[in-house]
Amino acid sequence: MKFEILIPVATAATVRGLNQEDMKELNAEVLLANTYHLHLRPGDKIIRKLGGLHKFMNWNKPLFTDSGGFQAFSLGYGMEHNINKLGTIFPESRKASEKQPKIAEISDKGVAFKDLASGKLVHLNPKKSMQIQQNLGADIILAFDECTSPLSNYEYTKRAMERTHKWAKESLYHHKKSLKTEKNKKYENQSLYGVVQGGEYRNLRVESAKFISSLNFDGIAIGGSLGKSKEDMHKILDWVIPLLPENKPRHLLGIGEIEDLFKCVEKGIDTFDCVMPTRIGRRGALFISPVSGGNLKNKFRINIKNSKYKLDRKPIDRDCNCLTCKNYSRAYMNHLYKSQELAYYKLASLHNVNFMLRLMEKIRDSIGKNYFNELKKEWISA
Amino acid sequence: MKFEILIPVATAATVRGLNQEDMKELNAEVLLANTYHLHLRPGDKIIRKLGGLHKFMNWNKPLFTDSGGFQAFSLGYGMEHNINKLGTIFPESRKASEKQPKIAEISDKGVAFKDLASGKLVHLNPKKSMQIQQNLGADIILAFDECTSPLSNYEYTKRAMERTHKWAKESLYHHKKSLKTEKNKKYENQSLYGVVQGGEYRNLRVESAKFISSLNFDGIAIGGSLGKSKEDMHKILDWVIPLLPENKPRHLLGIGEIEDLFKCVEKGIDTFDCVMPTRIGRRGALFISPVSGGNLKNKFRINIKNSKYKLDRKPIDRDCNCLTCKNYSRAYMNHLYKSQELAYYKLASLHNVNFMLRLMEKIRDSIGKNYFNELKKEWISA
Repeated sequence: MKFEILIPVATAATVRGLNQEDMKELNAEVLLANTYHLHLRPGDKIIRKLGGLHKFMNWNKPLFTDSGGFQAFSLGYGMEHNINKLGTIFPESRKASEKQPKIAEISDKGVAFKDLASGKLVHLNPKKSMQIQQNLGADIILAFDECTSPLSNYEYTKRAMERTHKWAKESLYHHKKSLKTEKNKKYENQSLYGVVQGGEYRNLRVESAKFISSLNFDGIAIGGSLGKSKEDMHKILDWVIPLLPENKPRHLLGIGEIEDLFKCVEKGIDTFDCVMPTRIGRRGALFISPVSGGNLKNKFRINIKNSKYKLDRKPIDRDCNCLTCKNYSRAYMNHLYKSQELAYYKLASLHNVNFMLRLMEKIRDSIGKNYFNELKKEWISA
Repeated sequence: MKFEILIPVATAATVRGLNQEDMKELNAEVLLANTYHLHLRPGDKIIRKLGGLHKFMNWNKPLFTDSGGFQAFSLGYGMEHNINKLGTIFPESRKASEKQPKIAEISDKGVAFKDLASGKLVHLNPKKSMQIQQNLGADIILAFDECTSPLSNYEYTKRAMERTHKWAKESLYHHKKSLKTEKNKKYENQSLYGVVQGGEYRNLRVESAKFISSLNFDGIAIGGSLGKSKEDMHKILDWVIPLLPENKPRHLLGIGEIEDLFKCVEKGIDTFDCVMPTRIGRRGALFISPVSGGNLKNKFRINIKNSKYKLDRKPIDRDCNCLTCKNYSRAYMNHLYKSQELAYYKLASLHNVNFMLRLMEKIRDSIGKNYFNELKKEWISA
């Protein structure tokens, strides 16, 4: 794996709005799929019977799976408290419309989820997470962890971190053990990453970074609450990253805004996964580069719903080489959005994912060729 | 234009679920867009300002537009009476869920529609339909007509036909006149088709076929109610087609099931448009050819929702050369459908549209090479 890579998220074995041929065309290097979702539907055993996730979704490049632990947060505590990973409070309307009851119970033994669709109770723990992820057969998998919320207090965050450390050792044990079985031999190259937790508390983050680094993981992921602001996130990364082993890849879970890519690559993060480009695209936000007026203030986005684009013949971004920008105008995208046409979701997702992948490529190139600071200045220091 | 052509429907300037690059890839020869929908959104004047429909939607092959008249039926009478063009009664649930009031008023002067989205009253008549279709700038446009329902009685159908004949002359007049203006010079090659009406009544169909044939149209479309069954439809086509001029193309509006293609091509229909392949695809019905078990009884379809496909590694149809069948299994499609993933709609639409376009190509080839009867027997006489 090359470093400085942005990993599009293929939650249910598909990047929402796109198919794998699109992802190859966009030159995505890795995709990340969700263990929890695939365990529930179609089921990891079914995927195993069908030859594993690569074959199931027809993707022969590397695949990442998460541990399922994040759902303990996003479907349990997070939904209850109506907040996301960076502490943003969801609007009440969203809470009401999603009608989420408390659906996750966490103990040292693992997590019990209630699946809203089937009503079934699902148990996850380190052993089961490893089994499921081996059934899926991704190239890189994650140790089972608990992701705390920015609203968790010190006591709770400490307990969750200790649980995560216990689970880290158990994940390693079960992973190595099951790789020795005959049926899992084909996965002997499967890498396992540990996850650093500890919320926004310095001593916990330091303890977790040291502990996870001391174990025999193939890479380190930084997860959990990264505080309540970008400043908090950077502070936390500055505590953690210097303590990580130099020779292991570092993945930052669920983060990947334009600003983050520049700043976190600089701090030493290698890989990112983020669902944001497709998610905001579906809601009308399309990326533009500085030459098209993108900046920190507008978050490098235009809102294609805006009626000022009704007669705009320009492509979304004049610097972009994607199929959408080569073939369609903002006016057409405005029309497709307003008509809620399926083609909108495809063309918007394609643009946003391509935009971020190309930006990450540029960042990588700029590091190799020593113009990172100029590039960063062009984008985020203007 | 070659004959025996199936025209995918791009209602709002997009074939639902696909983009124009897909349609080029699928070798679609013509697309049909809806005058009524585009008049309302984004507006035909906006499309004209943006350089016309071809440029707006980035499609440089031929385009058809309908007259807007069909909506007098489908949004007015049809919705009220809860039936479609072939007399199928919509289930009550659909009626209830769509909550359609009476929204079209028809008189000899034209049709007044209430647009449900904007609440605006829209008037259409022959002059306005020609203006709108010239603003859109398709290669082939349709005379303004009234499409009656299978529930319309003789008296009403006769009145509607007479109105359609009056409107046919007016459409011709306004079309020729406006083509002489400076601003419409670029559309001088725009063809205008007349529409034969008359419902399921022999003397009306005969009268209409003769009348429309006597006018200076570039082609003839057969529209309106085609009775209550396939037998009715074939009876009606047998009355009409022998009366049409030999040298003008004949288009059958809104019809295009597999059986219809064989039988109607045989009767002398040249072109078809049908929204069915994408519509049924979105609901889970995917086409299979006879080698995969397709036949008249199963309507050449499998229902991908069925859990028997959960572990099915086969492509949808083993004879199909589409991207979906080359790259994905029925099991993956079953998963995408159940997860309501956007990729499902794309891959399903792509398969169904490709399937019908390739079948139409085969039919065309079989006529040229004299094996039409064998092909027909393989498909619909088994």
